[in-house]
Amino acid sequence: MKSTPNGSDNISTGLLLQSGMIRQVMAWVYTYTTLWLQVLKNIENIVREEMNNYACFETLMPSLSPKDIWEKTGRWDTIDVFFHIPVTNDKEYWLNSTHEEIITPLLWEFIQSYKDLPVCAYQIQNKFRNEKRAKSWLLRGREFIMKDAYSFHSSDEEFKEYYEGMKKVYLKIFERLGLASDTYIAQADGGTFTDKYSHEFQVKLAIGEDFLFLDNMSKECFNKEVTPSMIPVLNISDEKLLERQDMYAPWIIGVEALAKTLWVPAHKSTKTMLFETNDEKFIVASVRGDYDINTLKLQKIIGCKSISLASEEKVREITWAEIGYAGIINLPVWIELYIDDSITWLTNFETGTNKTGYHSINVNFWKDVPVPEKFYDFKEAKKWDKNPKTGEIYEVFKASEVGNIFPLETKFSDVLWVRYLDENNQEKIPLMGCYGIGVSRLMGVIAEYCMDEKGIAWPENIAPADYYIVVLGENNLEKALWLGKKLESEWKKVILDDRMGKKVGFWQKMGDAELLGIKNIVIFSDKTKDTEKWYETKIRGEK
Amino acid sequence: MKSTPNGSDNISTGLLLQSGMIRQVMAWVYTYTTLWLQVLKNIENIVREEMNNYACFETLMPSLSPKDIWEKTGRWDTIDVFFHIPVTNDKEYWLNSTHEEIITPLLWEFIQSYKDLPVCAYQIQNKFRNEKRAKSWLLRGREFIMKDAYSFHSSDEEFKEYYEGMKKVYLKIFERLGLASDTYIAQADGGTFTDKYSHEFQVKLAIGEDFLFLDNMSKECFNKEVTPSMIPVLNISDEKLLERQDMYAPWIIGVEALAKTLWVPAHKSTKTMLFETNDEKFIVASVRGDYDINTLKLQKIIGCKSISLASEEKVREITWAEIGYAGIINLPVWIELYIDDSITWLTNFETGTNKTGYHSINVNFWKDVPVPEKFYDFKEAKKWDKNPKTGEIYEVFKASEVGNIFPLETKFSDVLWVRYLDENNQEKIPLMGCYGIGVSRLMGVIAEYCMDEKGIAWPENIAPADYYIVVLGENNLEKALWLGKKLESEWKKVILDDRMGKKVGFWQKMGDAELLGIKNIVIFSDKTKDTEKWYETKIRGEK
Repeated sequence: MKSTPNGSDNISTGLLLQSGMIRQVMAWVYTYTTLWLQVLKNIENIVREEMNNYACFETLMPSLSPKDIWEKTGRWDTIDVFFHIPVTNDKEYWLNSTHEEIITPLLWEFIQSYKDLPVCAYQIQNKFRNEKRAKSWLLRGREFIMKDAYSFHSSDEEFKEYYEGMKKVYLKIFERLGLASDTYIAQADGGTFTDKYSHEFQVKLAIGEDFLFLDNMSKECFNKEVTPSMIPVLNISDEKLLERQDMYAPWIIGVEALAKTLWVPAHKSTKTMLFETNDEKFIVASVRGDYDINTLKLQKIIGCKSISLASEEKVREITWAEIGYAGIINLPVWIELYIDDSITWLTNFETGTNKTGYHSINVNFWKDVPVPEKFYDFKEAKKWDKNPKTGEIYEVFKASEVGNIFPLETKFSDVLWVRYLDENNQEKIPLMGCYGIGVSRLMGVIAEYCMDEKGIAWPENIAPADYYIVVLGENNLEKALWLGKKLESEWKKVILDDRMGKKVGFWQKMGDAELLGIKNIVIFSDKTKDTEKWYETKIRGEK
Repeated sequence: MKSTPNGSDNISTGLLLQSGMIRQVMAWVYTYTTLWLQVLKNIENIVREEMNNYACFETLMPSLSPKDIWEKTGRWDTIDVFFHIPVTNDKEYWLNSTHEEIITPLLWEFIQSYKDLPVCAYQIQNKFRNEKRAKSWLLRGREFIMKDAYSFHSSDEEFKEYYEGMKKVYLKIFERLGLASDTYIAQADGGTFTDKYSHEFQVKLAIGEDFLFLDNMSKECFNKEVTPSMIPVLNISDEKLLERQDMYAPWIIGVEALAKTLWVPAHKSTKTMLFETNDEKFIVASVRGDYDINTLKLQKIIGCKSISLASEEKVREITWAEIGYAGIINLPVWIELYIDDSITWLTNFETGTNKTGYHSINVNFWKDVPVPEKFYDFKEAKKWDKNPKTGEIYEVFKASEVGNIFPLETKFSDVLWVRYLDENNQEKIPLMGCYGIGVSRLMGVIAEYCMDEKGIAWPENIAPADYYIVVLGENNLEKALWLGKKLESEWKKVILDDRMGKKVGFWQKMGDAELLGIKNIVIFSDKTKDTEKWYETKIRGEK
């Protein structure tokens, strides 16, 4: 196309559409045309080579699976992004977006004793997710290609060694894909699989969907969702402790409104909320007014599976006040109160009073509220926060996830009844790990990462072709074909642009070569001065 | 496994299960393990190379597609093997089992004028079919891999040339896959796409699901469903014409029962049936008693889209008789009667009288029934039948379909509004063709085709490995590894069997090499006599 089409929600997708490399079939579902498919194959081959080098076995599992195996692990009802396919009145299939339930019983057959461990099988395969809304363009589709690997282990040490080894395999893969200098291993939530962290492989990218917090001293890196954080300045002040005042400020709710009315700055106010846990327990949590509560961190502190905001009805019942006046004063004694460490050193601060219409100011620990046994860290980390472990201010940036690795412990091997015999002939449950790379997502990330104003400057390892031959004039076609065939015989991939006619002249062809992102451009033209060679060469991006 | 598992419905599937190459996830849905996947890749690469050599562009289209494009072509309601996926209350997707509706609008963008034609795009991709029942084992699954190609053309001549060229491409592919001597191009029904024949590529196989009729003189080959046929012996007899007799033989229905009761041999009886066409017209068709009616052939003679047996009620209404007494005598004058040419020269034959309880014998044309203007050929072909064109007796055998090619005419390009400009700048509708190869089905066919009593004797081109190295004793492992690495450096694929212990001795390992079907077997053992080489070699299948 002559220009970037409308409707693409970022620049690289626009360039890919313009060059004809991809076409949308429906929202978040694309056809790959010839050159994009070549990029995919190049990436797949790099992933495959490195996985094989780590002694992983490649397999290919189906997309369809029956309901019963997902019921065994309890995931039929808990994962909501699966496509359910009604088959007959009484039967239903699933379009797999993950394959633990398929690979586990399969590998069980091949594992007899500890001598067969560790073992790892993987596949590069089409996955389906019934996304309710787009996360962004190519990055997360309803149909996408993933490399997913699953490993089995006889001990925690053996698992850890393998898991650390896989990190190196991944870094090697991303290095070969030209992403080495901007790939980060971030700690992330372990999901429902493990109480431990999982690890995400993230590429620094302005349009990334995740925020990473990097400690440049310790090199620790966290996904925002799990970043431990410390406020940048501890407010130990020598301010004189004032008398607590209960202010009547009805219908004015929220930190900002309060700051305006009561002249309390956000960092001297508090934000208090009621939550209900999955086991129907109610708790109260309070954080400094300029922070938000990170429910994932809070949930891990409480030690429950999930938490959600308490209903308005419950808030009224428990605090005896309307919504908006919850605080750490006047709470019923039976309720557990969690206070974030951002409040620890506050003096003369504001809090709700659990009395409709009232807020208290000039509140102080000891005097007005008992000092809790422990302050916690469940604030949502933000810019300028520090790593509590090192005191180092985080570098914060956006990134896009291209891979993740998880300890699965015995979650699947236990219920799917995989056992092996250990050295003493005892039946044991193997530990598992899983390792994903979003292959089609990676293509989108690399496109965005490598683009310039003229197109996608593909890394040579994965470019759709090695040479782009521009032919001007029918009389030069034969010579160009000769060179093309010669290059192909040396295993180079060649695009020969033999479009003729006034409409596709030199600049059009050069522009298309740059749009497609081919590094080596060869020009056959009557104007070529170097008569010995019959052609000129150019390197994309060089003057 | 030590032996073939139960439940596999043919020998080769049993061998594949025994060797661990495939595992069933649910009925007709399999996981491919490492070696089977290698066979798949080898086959895919051969298909890909030959398609690329014919200047076809490889693409990758999605599995999901929205309802609206299938409604445009009217296929949402007419194809019943698609998986429908409810997404939200008002939206539904389709899991594609064919891709005309996806490729046609895509290629439309790339076709401007006749100069862009012919053009052909293909993919090797996972397909889904909601089969109600298994056709057989690996051959037709609910999820399978296909190569499907779609071509666009500016004239009938250009299309025909391309189509004939594709036949050669296909034959080359099947030759490279080791199937050359038993691949047949059979004429088959064109389905709803075309009034012309389509062509199937069939491999002769005892467990094949199709019957082929081959004329060894003209080399014409037909799928049974469309085989033109002539009875082997024309019954021109000098028998004296007898008087027609109406026999009372109630409750005795069917050719066999009649033969026993009235002593009329099947080849002197007739079988008459009432059909209703898709446009609610009723017709009567009659064939010799030892033949069946081929409704596909009959339907083409009538020139309607589909026919089905008339309901019992309609039979009673039209013939004024109970079911079982229909014949070519006493029919209402308004109804069209089609008589198969198997009856042409019959004398003194039997037919129903359309009178409950009665059959007529000693019936003769002229005397008892008017001679029809034309006799037709709508009998189901059977063994010993002749090709009407050449008079040659068909060779009949079972075969399994591995590919098919179809003229699509303008069915899709018209309604999906693909147009191009011809030499005179006039808008024209391109002709289309489509070309399928069932890649995973092919694997099943080749396995069955190549198996012997010990395993699958894979053709070298697609074998999962080139060498199988048997190592006996830890002390021989190092030497074996050295050879394995050397072979790999020469781009050979190697399986090294380093299982140790008493349970996996020489015969077990040799047996597994043969089960997997690897041609070159190398043995490292202390017993090896040839001290210069440290190893012995064997060729699978040779003593």
